[in-house]
Amino acid sequence: MFASTSRPELIPIGVVESPLTDMASAPKQGYEGAPDAWLVFEPAVLEGLEGLRAGDQVILLTWLDRARRDVLRVHPRDDVRNPMQGVFNTRSADRPNPIGLHQVEIVEIDAPRMRVRNLEAVDGTPVLDVKPVIRQTP
Amino acid sequence: MFASTSRPELIPIGVVESPLTDMASAPKQGYEGAPDAWLVFEPAVLEGLEGLRAGDQVILLTWLDRARRDVLRVHPRDDVRNPMQGVFNTRSADRPNPIGLHQVEIVEIDAPRMRVRNLEAVDGTPVLDVKPVIRQTP
Repeated sequence: MFASTSRPELIPIGVVESPLTDMASAPKQGYEGAPDAWLVFEPAVLEGLEGLRAGDQVILLTWLDRARRDVLRVHPRDDVRNPMQGVFNTRSADRPNPIGLHQVEIVEIDAPRMRVRNLEAVDGTPVLDVKPVIRQTP
Repeated sequence: MFASTSRPELIPIGVVESPLTDMASAPKQGYEGAPDAWLVFEPAVLEGLEGLRAGDQVILLTWLDRARRDVLRVHPRDDVRNPMQGVFNTRSADRPNPIGLHQVEIVEIDAPRMRVRNLEAVDGTPVLDVKPVIRQTP
């Protein structure tokens, strides 16, 4: 399924199933009252989940496919009272490469499905990657 | 330069300039003795940097263009004494979508260049995104 290539083309490894369907009404950040969601992984990548367990904190990367890529300045949090900022100084979904970063807790794994806590991504959002949270130990 | 499209194709917004040239000898994580590096941004995205300042902590997303995308299980930290794990339970560069996540401090901005502290990405690595570190305030 995956070619060993360095071309910057993304391959969705799964998709978000969520009760959130509308970006405008979704929370801006997961800790702001977002619901649980399911991630449904492609059969071809299931081996890559080996070792992950309920209770683990992971960083989920998604492709925010409803975002605008031609925007470089925004009012943070879509609030016109906030002065315009460069998108790289905000967490706006609108940006040249709309990759979403979400720290979530794994609640349950029932391959190819994984339930996670507090995910603000909307239903149908493609999943790009899962990484463990690193704790720096000196 | 940027079309308003949702196709999952990445557009490098800049490139890493670093004394690190060899992945094998680069530190695994930035806090493990990585050097300072320069990010050189594309002129078309400079407006997006507005508001960022020296001293800010940011999350840098890169495209790890030397990674293998057809690998789903690895020995963590390339050490065969570590039992094989799914790549999504590791920070291995080898994974279906080799996006690097790096938390760095901005040391100096001299547009289109930005110097950052402790970056383990090697010279020539494409830059995809910069996001501020969020501090959760209840």
